This record gives sequence, C-alpha cells and structure tokens, in this order.
Amino acid sequence: MRTTIKISAVLALAILAACGQQQNGSAAQSAEERNKETVIAFYDAAINDKDFEAASAYLGDKYIQHNPLAADGPEGLKAFLAFAKENLSSYKVEFKRVLADGDFVIVHAHAKANPEDRGSAVMDIFRLEDGKVVEHWDVIQPIPETAMNENTMF
Amino acid sequence: MRTTIKISAVLALAILAACGQQQNGSAAQSAEERNKETVIAFYDAAINDKDFEAASAYLGDKYIQHNPLAADGPEGLKAFLAFAKENLSSYKVEFKRVLADGDFVIVHAHAKANPEDRGSAVMDIFRLEDGKVVEHWDVIQPIPETAMNENTMF
Repeated sequence: MRTTIKISAVLALAILAACGQQQNGSAAQSAEERNKETVIAFYDAAINDKDFEAASAYLGDKYIQHNPLAADGPEGLKAFLAFAKENLSSYKVEFKRVLADGDFVIVHAHAKANPEDRGSAVMDIFRLEDGKVVEHWDVIQPIPETAMNENTMF
Repeated sequence: MRTTIKISAVLALAILAACGQQQNGSAAQSAEERNKETVIAFYDAAINDKDFEAASAYLGDKYIQHNPLAADGPEGLKAFLAFAKENLSSYKVEFKRVLADGDFVIVHAHAKANPEDRGSAVMDIFRLEDGKVVEHWDVIQPIPETAMNENTMF
C-alpha cells in the first residue's frame, strides 16, 4: 500500500510538472486577449474620437511611430490627433478583424474620411510592453473603384 | 490506506483534466509556427519566384482573393503570376516580420519593383485551413520620399 501511494505521489508530481510546461501557452493566450482589448480601446479613442487624453491611458513610456505622416513619441500622436480633429473630423475606422501574436496586435480596418467615402483598407501592427502600446506600423491603400474579384478588400 | 489511494487517484484525474485544458494552448502554438513556415514558403514561391507550380503545393482547395488586382481562386493566382513573370520580373519582397494567430498568418514586407526602387510597405493576412492557404488580404502603400519620423515604415 505504501509503495502504491508513493507511485501515485510521483505520478501526480510528474503530471504537475508537465502541466507547468503547458501553462505558458494558456497564459499567453489570455495576455493576447487583453492586448487586443487594449489596442482596440486605444485605436478607438485616438482615431475615432481623436481624444489624446483618453488614448494616452493605453500608451507606455514611449510611442515609436512608423507612419510617415506622424512624428515620433506621445507628443507626435498628440499633434497628429489635434490636426485630425481640425481637418479630418469625420474620419472613422471600422474594425474588420483583430489578431494577436505575443506582444503584437494586428488590426485590419476600413477607414473613411466621411460616410460617403469609398475609403481605404488599413492594416496596423501595434507592439505592446507590459500591456501598454509602445510602437506602431501601418499600411494604407485607397480602395479602388473596380476589382478583379467580388470579395472586397475585407 | 484505501481512502488515501482513492484521493490520490481522484487528484491525479483532476490534474489530468486541468492539463487537458492547457494543452490546447501549446498545440495551437506549434500549429501557428507551422502555418508561418507554410505561408513564407508559399509567398516566396509565388511572389519572389513567380512559380505557380511550386506555390500551389501550399494551397488548399480554394484561394479566396481580396487583392483587387487579382482574380479569385488558384486560377486567378496562376494568371497573376504569369502576368508578373512577364511584366514585373524583378519584383521582390523582403519579409520584415511574420506573426500568427490561430489559422491566420500576418506578413509585413518591403516590396520593390527593382533593386533601385524605394518600394512599398505591404501587410498581408493569409487564412489557412488544415495547414493550407485558402484566403488572402493585403494592403500596399508606396513608401513616401520623406517622413515625419526617422523610424522607416518597418
């Protein structure tokens, strides 16, 4: 009986050890879900609401900007949103899909200057550190009037 | 003793059950790594080598195309690559980052029509089914001559 109990204990420890190795995967998935929520809240506050104060709550201690039309850093975003509020007040994005891989969140969106605009297809990549947005890349392409397929750009 | 053994057995089963829930995370990570490799091999064969036969080995039973310049389906890709081979023979992409989320793989790349070209920033999203490429979206933007930051578009 004593031997059997020992075997059970050793088995339980072995299973626990194996479990520990698997836990990284699951914890990573939860962090990715939180990162997606953070990026959408940030993107919505920044680009749809053009509200730098609200958006800055999701920013880390830096904001490395790769969009060629915006200056680097949180100050660059602030200036860009002030310009947008003044000149592109009806500019809105509709989120089509949001994906995550580790500290990266990818957004595919449809941007329109106004409700009548055919608009542009946009893909963004955001990098986060400790759950805060610290870097941004994007690619923007005006949607052409005609296409060789009927699937739309989304 | 009998009671203790029963408790150990119940505990072991409970740990195993918890383990099962964690396993999804780890298996998903391996599938994502395989999906990334498949997409890069496909993209390289298609766009860099313009070799439809080689690329089609990575395609599923359909290819839903969202790039407005290409027709739908494997036949659309075949025609697009034949056109590219004839008219854009020096067109090459350099992969900058490759990310994955479940059945989706995201590629950020620098495309050039020739080695002297400043080129375009490209983001692609591919969807896979059973490890094969079945759907593609992209956004392409010519890199401007000047930018408001020094971080490049990559």
